[in-house]
Amino acid sequence: MTEQQVVRWLQAGDRYLLLTHVRPDGDTLGSASALALALRRLGKQAYLAPNAGVSSVFAPYVEGLFAPADFEPERIVSVDLAAVQLIPPEMEPWADKVELSIDHHPSNEGYAKETCLDSTAAATGEIIYRICKQLGEMDAELAARLYLAISTDCGCFVYSNTTPETHRIAAELMEQGDFWKKINKRMFQTLSMTQIRLQNRLMQTMEVFDDGATVVCGISLSDVAELGATPSDTEALSGFAVQIEGVKTAATLKQLEERVWKVSLRTDCTVNATKVCAYMGGGGHAAAAGATLRNVNEAEARAKVLEAIRMVQAEG
Amino acid sequence: MTEQQVVRWLQAGDRYLLLTHVRPDGDTLGSASALALALRRLGKQAYLAPNAGVSSVFAPYVEGLFAPADFEPERIVSVDLAAVQLIPPEMEPWADKVELSIDHHPSNEGYAKETCLDSTAAATGEIIYRICKQLGEMDAELAARLYLAISTDCGCFVYSNTTPETHRIAAELMEQGDFWKKINKRMFQTLSMTQIRLQNRLMQTMEVFDDGATVVCGISLSDVAELGATPSDTEALSGFAVQIEGVKTAATLKQLEERVWKVSLRTDCTVNATKVCAYMGGGGHAAAAGATLRNVNEAEARAKVLEAIRMVQAEG
Repeated sequence: MTEQQVVRWLQAGDRYLLLTHVRPDGDTLGSASALALALRRLGKQAYLAPNAGVSSVFAPYVEGLFAPADFEPERIVSVDLAAVQLIPPEMEPWADKVELSIDHHPSNEGYAKETCLDSTAAATGEIIYRICKQLGEMDAELAARLYLAISTDCGCFVYSNTTPETHRIAAELMEQGDFWKKINKRMFQTLSMTQIRLQNRLMQTMEVFDDGATVVCGISLSDVAELGATPSDTEALSGFAVQIEGVKTAATLKQLEERVWKVSLRTDCTVNATKVCAYMGGGGHAAAAGATLRNVNEAEARAKVLEAIRMVQAEG
Repeated sequence: MTEQQVVRWLQAGDRYLLLTHVRPDGDTLGSASALALALRRLGKQAYLAPNAGVSSVFAPYVEGLFAPADFEPERIVSVDLAAVQLIPPEMEPWADKVELSIDHHPSNEGYAKETCLDSTAAATGEIIYRICKQLGEMDAELAARLYLAISTDCGCFVYSNTTPETHRIAAELMEQGDFWKKINKRMFQTLSMTQIRLQNRLMQTMEVFDDGATVVCGISLSDVAELGATPSDTEALSGFAVQIEGVKTAATLKQLEERVWKVSLRTDCTVNATKVCAYMGGGGHAAAAGATLRNVNEAEARAKVLEAIRMVQAEG
């Protein structure tokens, strides 16, 4: 479906239930809540399906938008949700009833009846912005949610997925109010003490190879418990090590349970992160990918990651 | 002078020498080098006055643009240079001969014969962008220097000085090439090991008041020597502590010499940083200000800063 077709389809129906992905981020929550508000302004019923993983930083943007238990949707729309496996367990009943998927992930599996995909968009929020503009007037409430969606998915315009269009949309949104100052401060200029302590711990565990170009570091469940870290604290750790000057490939291991380790790989693209993670049964993008290693202790997990990196380096 | 008048004035003359400020940042260097290139494309001679403080991250953008020793300028233009005291010592001979100052600092002292000031611009680079566009065609070489100028002065679009116009100009510039990826990576996504170690050291020296809302921390010359830090490493430290969750006022002390300490104050504006620093003979903006304390040891410097913060808090 083109965006124009999506607009007409949205205008025609009612009782929308919007699905967001597991471990929800700013893009899936900001996009879905903006779309829900835009549909409500047309007099329609529109709710987000309750998502158990919403962290406190995003809560104000989805408040009052989650569907009550007795809501009976007519149409199910997924937002920023690339694959059936990324549908949270609590949305399982709707998994095979998705009529439209609005997304920017090139890996979207086409699980919905219809798909509106723009893989050139830095965030699904860019697509939703254009749809909202065609559905009605822009205002500060919509703009804040769209700015949240777009800015978080491009690291506040620093990641290489940012485009001129991303900046032009940000400019339009910012004209609706100064909501963006609070978002920038909270999302991009705030570090918790726990995050700082986790970074320090991570530095202490760092093994350095290739004259500093390759690093492997890890956080165990006992580290997490000792520092009182939350899942969102450890989530933010994945991008830390690759920022260190000279580092081209950084693997960050996080223990999920006894003998289960999650690998987050970040590279400057000289080593293809997807290929490295494919050796470990995972996947992702060229600069950021992941995999889960089972039945290994930390030393074995570190050895497996390094072996996978070496294989991809050897392929050239 | 209006920007239109500046354009006509620049077109009319020749042999331009461009002055940048002491401890040059991305805005003064990017703006001046873009302007020099734009003037050269009109067939004019244009150079930057040699600035001894250019750090290695900025060197590629000013290469080949510094004036030879025998250059005899006809017109002196200062760029992003708000006050005579900010003219580097090596440019002293030109200090009283500045014909035009192009700047965005509201505090510009009007030391030049003519001033072109836009205090709504996030960076002097925005003003230079509009001037360059009127002087000739935009291209990747100019765009890279202007993007450097603008992005560094707004922290890659995260600081509250960012405006819709800032984003619109970024969009235009990015259409000239992908130079911006390298700039974003180097300027905003790279931490040196030394910076990480300095941050850790700073955390260890942190005194916490007001339930974590006020913090005072400090780096001594012996810390700097032990960690092998450069002035630009310690420069970047000033903004670190205020990012910690819950911190509203952060004072970072850096020892300049025996019994001389520089105070960098950052606040969320609930405490006016300028007023605090005024008590110590310094100045700045509401959210970021500085002062230098002489004839004090570290404990005395910390006590003086806290006393100044308390006085401003008491004023309400």
